[in-house]
Amino acid sequence: MVDPANTVGIPVNPTPLLTDVLDIVIPTIRNLDFLEMWRPFLQPYHLIIVQDGDPSKTIAVPEGFDYELYNRNDINRILGPKASCISFKDSACRCFGYMVSKKKYIFTIDDDCFVAKDPSGKAVNALEQHIKNLLCPSTPLFFNTLYDPYREGADFVRGYPFSMREGVSTAVSHGLWLNIPDYDAPTQLVKPKERNTRYVDAVMTIPKGTLFPMCGMNLAFDRELIGPAMYFGLMGDGQPIGRYDDMWAGWCIKVICDHLGLGVKTGLPYIYHSKASNPFVNLKKEYKGIFWQEDIIPFFQNVKLSKEAVTVQQCYIELSKMVKEKLSSIDPYFDKLADAMVTWIEAWDELNPATKA
Amino acid sequence: MVDPANTVGIPVNPTPLLTDVLDIVIPTIRNLDFLEMWRPFLQPYHLIIVQDGDPSKTIAVPEGFDYELYNRNDINRILGPKASCISFKDSACRCFGYMVSKKKYIFTIDDDCFVAKDPSGKAVNALEQHIKNLLCPSTPLFFNTLYDPYREGADFVRGYPFSMREGVSTAVSHGLWLNIPDYDAPTQLVKPKERNTRYVDAVMTIPKGTLFPMCGMNLAFDRELIGPAMYFGLMGDGQPIGRYDDMWAGWCIKVICDHLGLGVKTGLPYIYHSKASNPFVNLKKEYKGIFWQEDIIPFFQNVKLSKEAVTVQQCYIELSKMVKEKLSSIDPYFDKLADAMVTWIEAWDELNPATKA
Repeated sequence: MVDPANTVGIPVNPTPLLTDVLDIVIPTIRNLDFLEMWRPFLQPYHLIIVQDGDPSKTIAVPEGFDYELYNRNDINRILGPKASCISFKDSACRCFGYMVSKKKYIFTIDDDCFVAKDPSGKAVNALEQHIKNLLCPSTPLFFNTLYDPYREGADFVRGYPFSMREGVSTAVSHGLWLNIPDYDAPTQLVKPKERNTRYVDAVMTIPKGTLFPMCGMNLAFDRELIGPAMYFGLMGDGQPIGRYDDMWAGWCIKVICDHLGLGVKTGLPYIYHSKASNPFVNLKKEYKGIFWQEDIIPFFQNVKLSKEAVTVQQCYIELSKMVKEKLSSIDPYFDKLADAMVTWIEAWDELNPATKA
Repeated sequence: MVDPANTVGIPVNPTPLLTDVLDIVIPTIRNLDFLEMWRPFLQPYHLIIVQDGDPSKTIAVPEGFDYELYNRNDINRILGPKASCISFKDSACRCFGYMVSKKKYIFTIDDDCFVAKDPSGKAVNALEQHIKNLLCPSTPLFFNTLYDPYREGADFVRGYPFSMREGVSTAVSHGLWLNIPDYDAPTQLVKPKERNTRYVDAVMTIPKGTLFPMCGMNLAFDRELIGPAMYFGLMGDGQPIGRYDDMWAGWCIKVICDHLGLGVKTGLPYIYHSKASNPFVNLKKEYKGIFWQEDIIPFFQNVKLSKEAVTVQQCYIELSKMVKEKLSSIDPYFDKLADAMVTWIEAWDELNPATKA
């Protein structure tokens, strides 16, 4: 925000960099050449790289980046039997990075995401926008038609209750994608050439009680506020489903944020998503999810957490019980997933004994 | 929408003009010179002008526009004692135009609204965009992160349930404002120089269960679907409140749309709002609303209409009873308003005996 009295136009409150309290989590199976383009924006930060697949492979990281890297052997060594809750051969493995981080904020990005340009041609500093989103409040209780009321040049419109204008703490910032949109396999197959070229200059709060499809490609969150719910489930190797890791996390974090009075924002920043994944491979991974979600979403829409659940962990354990009770009839997979949710929380608490959340 | 097989890029389904089924409703106290700028877009349509204030005054309408004009004497003559439900000396009088129209769609616009330009400098045909919004479905049950999935170049993202992709019928299209934003008096006083310069290229559905501040400045709706709920209340002359006419209608239509499974969209189109109204005058009109809304909004957030209410009229009558029961304790005004809501429906049904809604 700019001081209105500041007539020379210098921002008196520039967005804090938060370099000491933010980790960047990247799941990958390849050399991280994509970081070259991000260097001006991301080099000041610490990276947590979660190497998926063959642990004997070496992942090259461009010079000058500060990082720690975990492969499957590391995950098994650190978590022991609890490593079963971390997916293998699926980008869902990224959530291990959330767990080993000791920072307040996480930004996670896929290795096929590049720096987008805004309509003026300026490179978008995605992380800076995520930080802005996380540091200013959300407004889940009432809709503001001019979008984020805290943005420069905007405010609450006439008719917005004054008692709600302080908003609530923002737990999650969901960014979007130019070029290749995040479509499911059927849509990819039907519209192979569709590219997202529409830059929508908005950030908004997803209202309380409304679920959304959370994509893990360009995502930031406050680990202290919501970290233990950011579990990306059981996907990939040995599991009947893939490409629902971020969706699962999105449904879970949204019902928990709603329960705890926290906010979820979506919109800016955009990244440039370079490569469409293979729709035939995606269809194979997704097809069970495509029909399961028809039951899962009504389930989440009806979740009511108890008043006793006041921490994220308590909410998540309660949710795991509901998953076991209500979703296991869809497929035995959900029984296993419910157990993994509990294991995840146990592992989280083991690695984060003093967590404030 | 464009036929994907159409490689030459000619839209095969251009937006229908709907000139025979749409009326434009304009409340005014002055000559309608502002229509000159709108001529290329609005001249093919029929106007319903609701003249507010002194009925002896003559309102000049630019040549070539087809219109009917009603002043207070006309309203009294047509509605008889039921004319008491139509506000005087307040733009709330516009809803009389909704009632006398016989068309399926209404576009209402204030006489200080001009044609906006999009970022490319092109004049925005606001009515065309409203028609697009009304003719394509809404998606109130689940949030689509790429905004309106029916727009060209967009779709439902991964994780959006397929069973919900047909959407629901759109009843209301709420457009926005460049230049002078629709702020309340306190915000006007605090930020007298703030102008809205951000053109957000998006249309979105307001999720089910979420209320919003509906502004009547640039608004379109399907009269058959929601008309009888578009009552702008008792404002202005003889009433303790003003500038809450559209807000009242917005709360009512939203809970009724949610109940009946209809959609409400907001976003594009923009109009250029030329002149800020006097914040001191506004404060006097608004100040009761500013504290009353702290109780009114929780009331509307908790409204549960019965299964028996299956028409807009039935919903509205039910709502009027709840207003009388729950809001009269705030101020006797709400008792009077609840009665006026019933009168409005009686008058509506009298003028629209064969309405399908």
